[in-house]
Amino acid sequence: MSQATIGGVINGVDVEQLGQTVQAVQSNPSLGTSQFRVVNRWINGGHNRSTIKGFYGAGQEDTTRTTPFVLDADEPLALLGKDHAANPAEYVLHALAACLTTSLVYHAAARGIHVESIESKLEGDLDLRGFLGVSPDVRKGFQAVRVNFTIKSNATADQLAELAKFSPVYDTLANPVPVSIHIESR
Amino acid sequence: MSQATIGGVINGVDVEQLGQTVQAVQSNPSLGTSQFRVVNRWINGGHNRSTIKGFYGAGQEDTTRTTPFVLDADEPLALLGKDHAANPAEYVLHALAACLTTSLVYHAAARGIHVESIESKLEGDLDLRGFLGVSPDVRKGFQAVRVNFTIKSNATADQLAELAKFSPVYDTLANPVPVSIHIESR
Repeated sequence: MSQATIGGVINGVDVEQLGQTVQAVQSNPSLGTSQFRVVNRWINGGHNRSTIKGFYGAGQEDTTRTTPFVLDADEPLALLGKDHAANPAEYVLHALAACLTTSLVYHAAARGIHVESIESKLEGDLDLRGFLGVSPDVRKGFQAVRVNFTIKSNATADQLAELAKFSPVYDTLANPVPVSIHIESR
Repeated sequence: MSQATIGGVINGVDVEQLGQTVQAVQSNPSLGTSQFRVVNRWINGGHNRSTIKGFYGAGQEDTTRTTPFVLDADEPLALLGKDHAANPAEYVLHALAACLTTSLVYHAAARGIHVESIESKLEGDLDLRGFLGVSPDVRKGFQAVRVNFTIKSNATADQLAELAKFSPVYDTLANPVPVSIHIESR
């Protein structure tokens, strides 16, 4: 069954619109070009705040968001913060859980696979000797991340894993991303 | 000047406590072992929700958080969502901005460098041909991330960049992380 003929809404995803998006990007690859953005301001100590609004996608600057999303980050007391919000490492796990889930849901919809429920539990191992500069041979970032899904659907675990792995954030973590940092000091 | 003798609070960070943490992890490396966690539940379409509470650190299960942090993710209208929240790619940029900022602030404090203000603007390039499965040779994740900081302090841009790069999330993106996915299908 092709994407165009399934029609309707599956897993909360408009399958016809999804099929049209795929076809549009296939016939005009530049429509796939996207840019996401964040502006962050330091508040104090481990506490800072991001605002998120505009992005570029589908060949144009998106203007549908009228109000920015505001996200705080902080560190827990044990890491010398005031615990106003989740910490950056936890935000990475949230991003990964969300992206794997959405990727699975969208790709399942495109294939006519109905999903009833999805829950995931994520664990990320981090050794503070890296961040603290105590051991230069210990990596600063996550040493390993484990994702455990419990999913109700009529597909097999292997099928579902294949769909989840379309996730951009999964690829972003599993493979190196070039990150450039420019600082203007005043 | 050693960390122990600076004392007081710099950049909102208790420098004496920071020095004690460094010394504790130096003398007992197992105290650096940390584990962060997220539980995520799918709501509908591109909308899902994470809860974040417990973590392991400083040699024990942390119990100081009495209420979980709740984070939603969704996709914007152009990506077939309902725009209830930032999307996963934007959460990654928030995590990176927050972590670079906090790493800079903490390591500056440890060196007696006072920071007055920090703002960062991040851009992440993503080509949807990867996610949509249209072009298998196009990567699904971020192709590049650019971070532009404007910082008021008495340190040079090079010094500040060196401090920011202690960031665990920067390392998590710049270098590959083993991510294991297990699915229980019911």
